[in-house]
Amino acid sequence: MQQAAALAAEHELDALLLMPGADLLRLTGYDAMPLERLTLLVVPASGSPSLVVPGFERPLAEEAGVGALAEIESWNDGEDPYALAARMIGPGRRFAIASQAWASHLLGLQRALPDAGFVPTEEALPLLRAVKDAAELDLLQAAARSADAAYGELLRRPFGGRTEDEVAADLDAALRRNGHQSVDFVTVGSGANGASPHHAHGPRSMSAGDAVVLDFGGLVHGYASDTTRVVSIGDAGAEVAEVHEIVCRAQQAAFEAVRPGVPCQEVDRAARRVIADAGYGANFTHRTGHGVGMTIHEPPYIVEGEQMPLAEGMCFSVEPGIYLAGRFGVRIEDLVVVTPQGCRRLQCAPRDLAVVS
Amino acid sequence: MQQAAALAAEHELDALLLMPGADLLRLTGYDAMPLERLTLLVVPASGSPSLVVPGFERPLAEEAGVGALAEIESWNDGEDPYALAARMIGPGRRFAIASQAWASHLLGLQRALPDAGFVPTEEALPLLRAVKDAAELDLLQAAARSADAAYGELLRRPFGGRTEDEVAADLDAALRRNGHQSVDFVTVGSGANGASPHHAHGPRSMSAGDAVVLDFGGLVHGYASDTTRVVSIGDAGAEVAEVHEIVCRAQQAAFEAVRPGVPCQEVDRAARRVIADAGYGANFTHRTGHGVGMTIHEPPYIVEGEQMPLAEGMCFSVEPGIYLAGRFGVRIEDLVVVTPQGCRRLQCAPRDLAVVS
Repeated sequence: MQQAAALAAEHELDALLLMPGADLLRLTGYDAMPLERLTLLVVPASGSPSLVVPGFERPLAEEAGVGALAEIESWNDGEDPYALAARMIGPGRRFAIASQAWASHLLGLQRALPDAGFVPTEEALPLLRAVKDAAELDLLQAAARSADAAYGELLRRPFGGRTEDEVAADLDAALRRNGHQSVDFVTVGSGANGASPHHAHGPRSMSAGDAVVLDFGGLVHGYASDTTRVVSIGDAGAEVAEVHEIVCRAQQAAFEAVRPGVPCQEVDRAARRVIADAGYGANFTHRTGHGVGMTIHEPPYIVEGEQMPLAEGMCFSVEPGIYLAGRFGVRIEDLVVVTPQGCRRLQCAPRDLAVVS
Repeated sequence: MQQAAALAAEHELDALLLMPGADLLRLTGYDAMPLERLTLLVVPASGSPSLVVPGFERPLAEEAGVGALAEIESWNDGEDPYALAARMIGPGRRFAIASQAWASHLLGLQRALPDAGFVPTEEALPLLRAVKDAAELDLLQAAARSADAAYGELLRRPFGGRTEDEVAADLDAALRRNGHQSVDFVTVGSGANGASPHHAHGPRSMSAGDAVVLDFGGLVHGYASDTTRVVSIGDAGAEVAEVHEIVCRAQQAAFEAVRPGVPCQEVDRAARRVIADAGYGANFTHRTGHGVGMTIHEPPYIVEGEQMPLAEGMCFSVEPGIYLAGRFGVRIEDLVVVTPQGCRRLQCAPRDLAVVS
């Protein structure tokens, strides 16, 4: 909480306005429901923090121990929570508000504080949660190991003759069996479906010759996993193998570009250069990565235009891909942690094109 | 989509700005991921709708058939999605934006459209999804039946000697077994934990004499269930029985107050009057209910100050409660649908204080 206040002061913000979700949980230990009733943690650059909660959720905030960290103020159904929030926020003109706060809450605060300006936390304070401490890195490592184990189990059963939906259900179950408390997404993109990066899974029955993109992740003790691998059912042909090899080299190039002080966009450029040189530049249609922590997408974003320098302890995905519309796709994703001299991968699962039956 | 545009015109809005979630799904059939990349459906009061999507998600929007309903425009990582959105939104000064849109997206739009004013959809257009058609009511009915069946199964196993966590896991499994595709919340609030309305569940071991609040819901084919019942492990004593009877009467009074044209707040008042007359007014610490549909909390809100008249086809919860801090709580919740002459309940599970072992 003190670090957050110092960060606010350093960035000339009068206060941080944080909402239920990862920020609130990390700063106070209180895991509130992100719903239509206002719950708001005010962390002023100077002065003491306060938490605005719905009256009947006050016992939950108290049980979570928030009382030792912040003054708790509550409002009841039928009252105006934004008037109370404005009193707790106090004077000031420039505030960072949680990027994921509901628009209804931001509009309520804008009305109650007509002279105030607001910036999303991810833009104003990308470092709020981006640098992980040792305990967090252990949890991220454990999540990655759990995902590795699930992937290993998945490869032991045949893919051919089963649908994407069936394999997705299997992978979901394997993640939970290996320690995931939640599974937030499972992509099983076979054949042409693999060329749509955010395809989830569908009724398509898979068969020999298919390349299958598997992208999966969820939470283990509050920290996220996120892995992508591609498998080939039998022999998927020379072009799949060639594209896979290019993506593998691109991922390695990005991996080798990571070290403290390097701007995020340089890591994106390193991956993109390999793919463009191989003639597939137009088929790499997304950024190279995103930060991972208590949420699956958070700063740092590894994208052209992002000049923030990497710092030791940041954790993010490195996931270049090549997508050939109507045919197949390949993406390889590991999470990496920035170390003093470079970075290390959290996943151990082999990155090669695994051949399954 | 045409109804939404007409509703916008009627409320003197230049356009509706809708984001991934229930609004987008209901209007277009496209179930997009609500993440940090901008996906925005623009429904102008006059003119044709458009959908702004991340470039690599364009195939997903096309597969969902959005192309027949709206012009699809895409942006790529590293580009400014808000500049594109501003072009698609066009001129205008007053817009309704999805209540649940991320603050980062609203701030991006406010910067790109500095002269525009924004109102949350739930405030500007509470009727956007509040009145359900026959097909939706069938789905809500099916979800309630699934929840009824799960509750029936739960009562057949003993509670005494098990923890809240264990019973919650049981209830979660029973909901899925009976057709729930997702379980969004399970409250097992035993003894003093029942006095905290949003308590989820914990390691407390339950025993004879406990009153236990069970509040549970999730989605069946995209529509929500939401039920609360209280059980007594053996004999929970005369006071629990008395409080339960008062809450039961309050719930019935609210139920009887529902008919088209009645302001929402009158339903809240009807429940509150019974509880206040019995001397527990200060212990009923939340509104009487909330709308339910594709989301679990949506308009209409059954709360003091809400003067919107009820209309046939609205569906909402009626859930008064009495909470005695440090001792126990009682809440009884059904979903009701407004009919021409009054309303009907979706749940069939008995509302009496069920005695379990």
